[in-house]
Amino acid sequence: MRVAVIGASGYTGLELLRILSRHPEFELCVVTSEQRAGAAVGDGFPSLRGIVDLDFEANDPAAIAPRVDIAFTALPHAASAPTVMALRKAGVRVVDLSADFRLKSVDTYTRWYGEHPAPALIDTAVYGLPELYRERLAKTELVAVPGCYPTSVLLPLVPFLKQGLVATDGIVVDSKSGVSGAGRKLDESFLFAELDDNCYSYKVGNQHRHVPEMEQEAGFAAGSDISVTFVPHLLPTTRGIVTTIYLRPNAPLSTERANRVLREAYAHERFVRVLPEGQTPSLASVRGSNFCDVAAVCDERANTLILLSALDNLVKGASGGAVQSANVMCGFPEHSALLEAPLVP
Amino acid sequence: MRVAVIGASGYTGLELLRILSRHPEFELCVVTSEQRAGAAVGDGFPSLRGIVDLDFEANDPAAIAPRVDIAFTALPHAASAPTVMALRKAGVRVVDLSADFRLKSVDTYTRWYGEHPAPALIDTAVYGLPELYRERLAKTELVAVPGCYPTSVLLPLVPFLKQGLVATDGIVVDSKSGVSGAGRKLDESFLFAELDDNCYSYKVGNQHRHVPEMEQEAGFAAGSDISVTFVPHLLPTTRGIVTTIYLRPNAPLSTERANRVLREAYAHERFVRVLPEGQTPSLASVRGSNFCDVAAVCDERANTLILLSALDNLVKGASGGAVQSANVMCGFPEHSALLEAPLVP
Amino acid sequence: MRVAVIGASGYTGLELLRILSRHPEFELCVVTSEQRAGAAVGDGFPSLRGIVDLDFEANDPAAIAPRVDIAFTALPHAASAPTVMALRKAGVRVVDLSADFRLKSVDTYTRWYGEHPAPALIDTAVYGLPELYRERLAKTELVAVPGCYPTSVLLPLVPFLKQGLVATDGIVVDSKSGVSGAGRKLDESFLFAELDDNCYSYKVGNQHRHVPEMEQEAGFAAGSDISVTFVPHLLPTTRGIVTTIYLRPNAPLSTERANRVLREAYAHERFVRVLPEGQTPSLASVRGSNFCDVAAVCDERANTLILLSALDNLVKGASGGAVQSANVMCGFPEHSALLEAPLVP
Amino acid sequence: MRVAVIGASGYTGLELLRILSRHPEFELCVVTSEQRAGAAVGDGFPSLRGIVDLDFEANDPAAIAPRVDIAFTALPHAASAPTVMALRKAGVRVVDLSADFRLKSVDTYTRWYGEHPAPALIDTAVYGLPELYRERLAKTELVAVPGCYPTSVLLPLVPFLKQGLVATDGIVVDSKSGVSGAGRKLDESFLFAELDDNCYSYKVGNQHRHVPEMEQEAGFAAGSDISVTFVPHLLPTTRGIVTTIYLRPNAPLSTERANRVLREAYAHERFVRVLPEGQTPSLASVRGSNFCDVAAVCDERANTLILLSALDNLVKGASGGAVQSANVMCGFPEHSALLEAPLVP
Repeated sequence: MRVAVIGASGYTGLELLRILSRHPEFELCVVTSEQRAGAAVGDGFPSLRGIVDLDFEANDPAAIAPRVDIAFTALPHAASAPTVMALRKAGVRVVDLSADFRLKSVDTYTRWYGEHPAPALIDTAVYGLPELYRERLAKTELVAVPGCYPTSVLLPLVPFLKQGLVATDGIVVDSKSGVSGAGRKLDESFLFAELDDNCYSYKVGNQHRHVPEMEQEAGFAAGSDISVTFVPHLLPTTRGIVTTIYLRPNAPLSTERANRVLREAYAHERFVRVLPEGQTPSLASVRGSNFCDVAAVCDERANTLILLSALDNLVKGASGGAVQSANVMCGFPEHSALLEAPLVP
Repeated sequence: MRVAVIGASGYTGLELLRILSRHPEFELCVVTSEQRAGAAVGDGFPSLRGIVDLDFEANDPAAIAPRVDIAFTALPHAASAPTVMALRKAGVRVVDLSADFRLKSVDTYTRWYGEHPAPALIDTAVYGLPELYRERLAKTELVAVPGCYPTSVLLPLVPFLKQGLVATDGIVVDSKSGVSGAGRKLDESFLFAELDDNCYSYKVGNQHRHVPEMEQEAGFAAGSDISVTFVPHLLPTTRGIVTTIYLRPNAPLSTERANRVLREAYAHERFVRVLPEGQTPSLASVRGSNFCDVAAVCDERANTLILLSALDNLVKGASGGAVQSANVMCGFPEHSALLEAPLVP
Repeated sequence: MRVAVIGASGYTGLELLRILSRHPEFELCVVTSEQRAGAAVGDGFPSLRGIVDLDFEANDPAAIAPRVDIAFTALPHAASAPTVMALRKAGVRVVDLSADFRLKSVDTYTRWYGEHPAPALIDTAVYGLPELYRERLAKTELVAVPGCYPTSVLLPLVPFLKQGLVATDGIVVDSKSGVSGAGRKLDESFLFAELDDNCYSYKVGNQHRHVPEMEQEAGFAAGSDISVTFVPHLLPTTRGIVTTIYLRPNAPLSTERANRVLREAYAHERFVRVLPEGQTPSLASVRGSNFCDVAAVCDERANTLILLSALDNLVKGASGGAVQSANVMCGFPEHSALLEAPLVP
Repeated sequence: MRVAVIGASGYTGLELLRILSRHPEFELCVVTSEQRAGAAVGDGFPSLRGIVDLDFEANDPAAIAPRVDIAFTALPHAASAPTVMALRKAGVRVVDLSADFRLKSVDTYTRWYGEHPAPALIDTAVYGLPELYRERLAKTELVAVPGCYPTSVLLPLVPFLKQGLVATDGIVVDSKSGVSGAGRKLDESFLFAELDDNCYSYKVGNQHRHVPEMEQEAGFAAGSDISVTFVPHLLPTTRGIVTTIYLRPNAPLSTERANRVLREAYAHERFVRVLPEGQTPSLASVRGSNFCDVAAVCDERANTLILLSALDNLVKGASGGAVQSANVMCGFPEHSALLEAPLVP
C-alpha cells in the first residue's frame, strides 16, 4: 500500500518516517516539506540516511493523490483541512494528525481555532483511538488522530466514566510533557539553555486547546457534559507525557478494585499496559514505543481516586497512534510496525 | 559567630557550606562527616577548594560544643535527635534539617518514623518557616527546618486557609521534584541512565513522609484537621520543586482576587515573590536562590483554585531556609547570605 | 534458532533483549540474571512487559546448553570466560560481550585484567567487527564483541592505517561517552545529581582498558606496533560515543581525498555511514541504531587529519554489533533486526 | 562606582547583572536592551525580580555616558565598537565582551570578522586575562574580554609555552562547550529537542573565530608564530567548557613535573585551581563560579603532554572574567563579587 507523509519537516512527520520505514505493508512513496522540497530526506534528517531513500517534494495534493493509497497529514491546524479535503475527493484515505477533525462541534472548533476550513468532512472522520473506536475506524476513510494530552487522559479515565464510578465534576488533570509536543517551533522558551533543568506550568486553567477535546470524549464516555481542570507542565525531556488525574469516586473504591476496572477494560489491548499494584508509569518505560502504561491508586482517606499514565507523545500520542489507526482502517494487524521495545536506558 | 555543620557529606550539608562560606556573620569552624573524617573539605568537595579551608572531622558533640555558638545538623532522621540533644544541653543553638522536630505530635512521628529519640525537645523547637513563625524563631534556640515539599506547599496555601477561602477537604497537591531531594543516596533509580529524560510519580497517595507535616501546618492555619492528597513526581533535574495545588473555593473567587490574597500576605517578604498575572513559577527562575515564587489562577468554570509554586529544594527548601531561620534566631538581617541572584541560564 | 542471553540485568543485556525481541530468526528462550532469577523479565524491566514473556533464571551453562543454539554472554570480564568455555564445550555458539576474548596476547590480557581464565579459547575467537573480519566471522563459533570505544576508533581509523596514509606515532584519540558505557554500576559519580550538566575526562593517558584493544587492532591494520594517546570523557547523556582522532598525514592530504578514502572503504557497508562534507557525526543521528557515522576533515595548515565518528555505545558499540556478528556467523542477512531508524528527536 | 551594562538581553548580559548585583563597589545604574527597552528588568528576566530594580533602556551612549563611570558592553562584534568608541570619547571606562578589541592585527580581524569599525582603539585595549596582563589592566581604560574557548586554552597552555617546554607545532585543542556559549540565538540546532542527549563537533579544523585569538596569545607566550588545530564540540549542558590539549614535550616530561609547572605559575592566583594529581577538572566543580580548574598528565609512553581545564563559559569565560578585569582596572580587590562557591550539585 503506497503511502504519503504530508508535512514531514516537523517531529511528528519525522516520527512517521521512522515508524513507516519498518512497516511491512506500507510503502513510503511521497514525503513533502515546503522548506526542504528538492532535498534528499537523508540530508534533511541525517538520522534517516540509509533508511529512507526519497526526496522531499512540495505539497501538491492533486499531483500526489494518484501516486498513493493513503496519506498521513502532519500539517498545522487549519492548514491541514484543505489538503485533507483534496485528498479525500481524490479517493485517498487520510490519517490527519492535526486538530482539524477531532472536534465534532464546529462551534467549539471555531472558538478554539478559528473558522473551520472543511466542516462538511467532520462527520466522516473517526477519532483515532482504536481502544475506543476500533469498529468505526475499520470502516472509515478519514482518521482524526487525537492530541497527545487527550490520549494520556482518556485511556485511564474513560473506563471509570463509562461505569459511572466517579463524579463528573471537579475532575483535575495534571500533565507533564516533554518539549517535542510543541513541535519543532523556533521559540526562545524551547532553547536548550532555557529548558535544561527547568520545569513549569503553562496555559493554566482552561486555556490549552486540548481541553475541549478531552471534554468531548470524556463527555461521550460519561453520557453527560464534563468540564476538566487541566494544567500542563513542561518537562526538561524531549519525549513523553506523564499524566496524573484526581477524581472523586461516587462510592468508596479500593486501589485493588480500581485496578481491576483498568485491567478488565484493557485485557485485550496490546498497547495499554495496566501496571501491577505498586508500580507507577514512567516516561522511560514507554520511550520510543506505542505503549500507554496506566495505573490506579485510591487515597481512601481523602476519597480520591488517582489515575496515572505515561506515553511517548510522538508515538502513542501522535505518529504511532496514527499508524495504529491506519492499520485498523486498512485491515492490517493492528500492531504492525508498532511492537518495538521501548528504548531503555 | 562560630558555626558547625554536622553531617556535611550529603547535598544539604554541601549546600550549607556553599551558603555559609559567603555569610558575613557566621564563621565556619567545624565540618563533620563520618565517611570523610580527616580529609580536607576541598578534597571531598572539589567545588569548595579555595573556598572552605577546613578538614572534615567525626561527629563528637561533646568536643564540638565548646568550639561553636550554633550548629546546623544535617543528619538523617532519628540519627539527628541525639546530637541535637547533646548540643542543646551544652547551650549550642541548633538548626536541625532532619525531620526529628518538625512534628508536634509524638504519635504522628512514631507512626511515620519510629520511636522518637528526644520527645522532650519537641516543644522547644520552632518550625523554621520565618514567613509563618518569625517572632517565635527570634526567641528560640532550636529550629526544625521544614521539609522541601511542605515549604513549597505551605507558602502558597496558608494564606487561603487562614482566611477560610477554600474547602479544607479535597485538597490535591501535585508536586514535581529534582532528584537532589532524595539526597546523595546510592539507589539504582537515581543513576543518571535511569533518570535522564525520565519522569514518574512515586509514593502515590498518603505514603510520603512529608504528608503529616503538610497536614499539621495546614491544619494550624485552617484551625481544623486537614487531609491532603499528595502525589510527588521525580523530575530529570538536580534541583527544584514545582508544586501545583488544586482547591475548591468556598465562594466564587477570581484570579485577580486570589493573587491579591497572595500579594497582601507576602507584601513584606523578601523571599516569596508573587508573580504578575500570566506568569508561572519555574525552576530556572529560582535555581540556586532562596526565593519561592508563587502564583494563583482560578478556573472559575470548574470552581477550582490553582496555586503554583517553585523553589530550589536545596536552598529555600532546606539549607537556605535553615540559614534564613538562623539569621532570625541570631538577630542578623534575615537575608544575610541569601540574596544571591538565581543561576540563570 | 534458539537463543540465550546470559547476564541480562545490565544495560547491554537489556539492549540485547530489545534487539533480539524483533529478530525474525532468533527465538529468545533463556534469559539469566543472578539477582533477578525467578522474576518475570517484564517485572525486572518494565519496558519489556508485553514484549518478552520469559522468567529470568540463574546462569547454569550445563542446564542451558541443551536448550539453545547460540548464547550471548553479557557477563563481567573474567566471570565470562568459564561460562563461555562450558557453552562452547557443549557445542553452543557464543557471542561474548566481555573483554575476555578480544586480546590475542595472553600477556596483555594479564597486564590489564589479571590471569586469563581460558587462554586456550583465545585463538578460536574472532573479533566481532564484520567490517574488518566478515569472512572469519562466517566460519567461527565464538565471537569476541569489541569494546565500545575501540569500535568508534577503528572504523574511521583503519582505512588510513591500511593504506599507510598517516604516521603511526603521535595518534591522539579524544572520546566522549554517555554513562551507560559504564554499565548499571552503583557508583556515586554516576548518580543523576552528579552527572547532570557535567562533563569531565577520566583515566587520562594510557589508563583505560580499551587502549590495548585499540592498539592491537590498529597495529594489525598498520602492520606495525602502534601506541595511542587516549583520553575518554564522560558526557551527561545516557547513550552514545563521539570520537575525534588527530593524525599526522605522511603526505599532504585534502579533506576531499580523506573522505574518498572513507567512502571507498565503506561503499558496501550498511552500518557505516560516511557523511557528506560539511556534516559532522552526532549522537542524536545514531541514537538507538546500529549505525556508526564517520567523517574526515583535514587541517592542511597544521598538517593534521581529523577523523570524526559517532555511534550508540549500546547498539553498534555492544549489543547491536553482537547481533550483527551473530547474523554473519549464522548466515542470516547481516542487517536482520538492525535496520531500525535512530530515535530522533 | 556607577555601572552600565550595555546589551543585557543575552546570556552574558544577564550573567553580568547576576554578578554585579552582589558587587560591593559597583552600583548598577543603566541596563540596556533594544528589544526590551521600557520593560522592568525583573519582567524580562524573572530570576532577577527583587534583585535588580531598574528598567531596560535603549542603547544611547551619549545619554548614558554622563550617568556612569564604567560600562560593560555585551553587544555582538562589529556592533560593539561604535558604542565603545562613543563611551571612551566621553571618558567612560569600558569592559568590552565582544571580539572587537581582542585581536591586535587589523588584518586578522578583517579576515575573520570583516572591516574593523574602530581600528584606532585597538592599541589602547588590554586583553582581559589578569593572570597574564594584570599590570597593564591596572593602567588601561579599555578591556577586551577574552573569548570563552581561548580562556580555557590559554590558562593551562601558556606556562608551558613561556618556558619552551613543548613543541609549538602540532598543538591539538579538543574543547567541549555547553550551548550558552552560542548566546541566546534562535537557531533550530539549539532547541532542547535537538540538543538533549546529543553531542557533536562543529567548525572542525581552523574554522572557529576563536582560533586567531588563541594563536595570537599563544604566540606571544611562545615568542613565535603558532598554529593550533582546534575542534570544538557542543555538549548537552547549558554552561561550561572542558578543554583537553595535546602537546609534544621538547624533552621527556613527567606528570609530576608538568603539574609543578602549573602549580608554580598559579601559586598566587585565586581563580586558577591546579588540581591534585589524579583529579580531573569537571564542569560541575566550576559551575556558576569564576574558577578555572587545570591539571596535567603526561603520557610518557607516547611522549604526549595532556593539559586539562574546565571553566564556566559565562563566568570565567565571559562575565566573571570581565568583572575580574574591571576590579583590577578600578583598583578594587580582584575577587570582589567573584568568590562565590560553585553551584554543586
